[in-house]
Amino acid sequence: MSNIKIGLFGFGVVGQGVYEVIRKSKNAHAEVVKICVSNLQKPRRTEVDASLLTDRAEDILLNPEIDLIVEVINNADDAYQIVKTALERGIPVVSGSKAMLAKHLPELIELQKKHNVALLYDASSCGSIPVIRNLEEYYDNDLLLEVKGILNGSSNYILSRVFDHKEPYESALRKAQELGFAETDPSFDIEGYDSLFKLVIITVHALGTYVAPERIFTYGISTIHDSDIQYAREKGVKIKLVAQVVKVSDEHFTMFVMPEFVSPNKYIYSVDDEYNGVVIRGECYDRQFMFGKGAGSLPTASSILSDIMARRHDYRYEYKKQHFEQKPDYTTDILLKIYVRYSQTNIQHVLHFEQIHEQYISSESNYVIGDIRLSELIAKRDQLTAKDLFIANIPIFFLNKDN
Amino acid sequence: MSNIKIGLFGFGVVGQGVYEVIRKSKNAHAEVVKICVSNLQKPRRTEVDASLLTDRAEDILLNPEIDLIVEVINNADDAYQIVKTALERGIPVVSGSKAMLAKHLPELIELQKKHNVALLYDASSCGSIPVIRNLEEYYDNDLLLEVKGILNGSSNYILSRVFDHKEPYESALRKAQELGFAETDPSFDIEGYDSLFKLVIITVHALGTYVAPERIFTYGISTIHDSDIQYAREKGVKIKLVAQVVKVSDEHFTMFVMPEFVSPNKYIYSVDDEYNGVVIRGECYDRQFMFGKGAGSLPTASSILSDIMARRHDYRYEYKKQHFEQKPDYTTDILLKIYVRYSQTNIQHVLHFEQIHEQYISSESNYVIGDIRLSELIAKRDQLTAKDLFIANIPIFFLNKDN
Repeated sequence: MSNIKIGLFGFGVVGQGVYEVIRKSKNAHAEVVKICVSNLQKPRRTEVDASLLTDRAEDILLNPEIDLIVEVINNADDAYQIVKTALERGIPVVSGSKAMLAKHLPELIELQKKHNVALLYDASSCGSIPVIRNLEEYYDNDLLLEVKGILNGSSNYILSRVFDHKEPYESALRKAQELGFAETDPSFDIEGYDSLFKLVIITVHALGTYVAPERIFTYGISTIHDSDIQYAREKGVKIKLVAQVVKVSDEHFTMFVMPEFVSPNKYIYSVDDEYNGVVIRGECYDRQFMFGKGAGSLPTASSILSDIMARRHDYRYEYKKQHFEQKPDYTTDILLKIYVRYSQTNIQHVLHFEQIHEQYISSESNYVIGDIRLSELIAKRDQLTAKDLFIANIPIFFLNKDN
Repeated sequence: MSNIKIGLFGFGVVGQGVYEVIRKSKNAHAEVVKICVSNLQKPRRTEVDASLLTDRAEDILLNPEIDLIVEVINNADDAYQIVKTALERGIPVVSGSKAMLAKHLPELIELQKKHNVALLYDASSCGSIPVIRNLEEYYDNDLLLEVKGILNGSSNYILSRVFDHKEPYESALRKAQELGFAETDPSFDIEGYDSLFKLVIITVHALGTYVAPERIFTYGISTIHDSDIQYAREKGVKIKLVAQVVKVSDEHFTMFVMPEFVSPNKYIYSVDDEYNGVVIRGECYDRQFMFGKGAGSLPTASSILSDIMARRHDYRYEYKKQHFEQKPDYTTDILLKIYVRYSQTNIQHVLHFEQIHEQYISSESNYVIGDIRLSELIAKRDQLTAKDLFIANIPIFFLNKDN
């Protein structure tokens, strides 16, 4: 069996992991023959032969020896150019760039068809947890009702420190960055965008429909406050940053990324630290829970290796669900029950609630719990960025043993 | 897209579930055209057109209209004859018969190759949890170190009642049978054979090696006693019936099914009631945990549906790991630390321990904790069936946050 010859774009944390994992796996029959980096001089943990390194993309893209491109760079625009060019040239690609994929997936799906070439990206969502592959291959029927989970290790690590170790938010964020869990731009993690991008990709494989990131309500944890934490503790729940896509009827599904009050009887309650956990719910099989390391050099690299080996058998995503006869449409016309904590902002002037369930006013902070349409949250999202606001979803079936 | 025409063998709990799930899934494009049952007169929960039913296997096996056979019958010998005949005739089969598969897998793999036909059986192991498919496709590299889990819902349900609800063992067993979790022959569940058969199948897809069931040490929970439960409670652990296959070195792996003391920091500690949970551990990706309904009509049927739909894309197992250059061999020459509770049996005359760590003697019952070779347990297994004995594995890395 001849080796697959790989051109690797990116030699940061994940790229070095890919290089290491490929060397570890004797039966992978894969070999990195060229590594493209943006800065040849940058010192790196992993030693490689200098002849492998290049800073010119064409050394890989125009190299006839290369069978497969692995792209794990940080810059989404550069990643897009590389992946697009590779696909147009008929070279299969394994990518880990979630921001790029979430933005360009429809075009990249077309390019795969047009040039009869594969793009695999299981590593882009939840690192070593095989979410995409299972949604595409195993849950490839129309029984699927919901995918919900903690998709971002960094924000989850921060919330775990805050909840389980009673650490201040700022110090927890610093620690996450020191440990390398946080993305280059921490706002990606803590504002929910990292989870959002993964959710966009997951939804394509869960329900066969692409929804552009900007159409999806996304709210992060950067404004969480001691009073929110105290409130959650008093109710015996944790606050987790949760991404979810849910079929609300045969005709419609909805999706959003938002902090959520999670009660101890839910599977994701015990997903702590930098771990990810995903619940896949369907008619007939009820709930499947998958749990593992969602980020980090080697876990992500092991997922890349799975995609590389899948190429040995000419595996590609078929995007079967895009061709389902009855495909639900995206809707934001659903009612959520949310908690909003505020101090200065006159929240009921900003948001129109369908119904108010609770209101609490004090000299320090106030909160309101009420029913609101998701479309209303999206319409007002620019007014919800104030530092004195924090919003969390209250799952309506709070007492069920579920997700 | 034309419908896949299915011949169904077996119309019990799972068979009826398969029939229902196929009808529910509009995009499956599958249709049951014939159902073979052993007794046409037996009353059934699910109503079907009488013309669908037959009691003659040849009405399916010799029917040129049928594209795929789904076999979910209880009798392992009959199942073997059906599957063998179908494969020889070039008809692909989806099977859920773990006992049959565990016994005949090498021959059935050969038949698949010889007749260029597929046999899929994800439903045979852990119902709706996609263990086989993931081991075969996603963890298809040589980073895998261990698969360990609770593979039998019925025995787990019983242990959960005993531990969490302080019910007597006998009443818990009765309840499991009433709820339909238990197999027709409950000794299958409680003596560990159901777990064993699943472990044999899993190992073929985890490490590429078939080990015959009779070569594997299997010990169940039927002799568990209040004193064992009390002992576990005092130590703050639960007793679970655990099946595991573990690479102990680059050259060797071992496997066994045995009750195990499980501490609260392990993932499987919280797998309760009729649920199954599997931990997949590998170099680089560490531990992945999969959790879900391991048995029951619809969860098992949903897994069968996944296999049916995989046939739309001509999916078959490649058994790639069988061809790995470096494949570890099965060994029983490993040291275990075990707990043995006994009353009449003079246990130290029966078993040769390498080292004794603890001994407790009282008028009611005695126990010993010591190191023993797995080969010694296998050699003496006929002497370990006494009613006054109970054996449990004590994982050696007891304090690690693991499996």
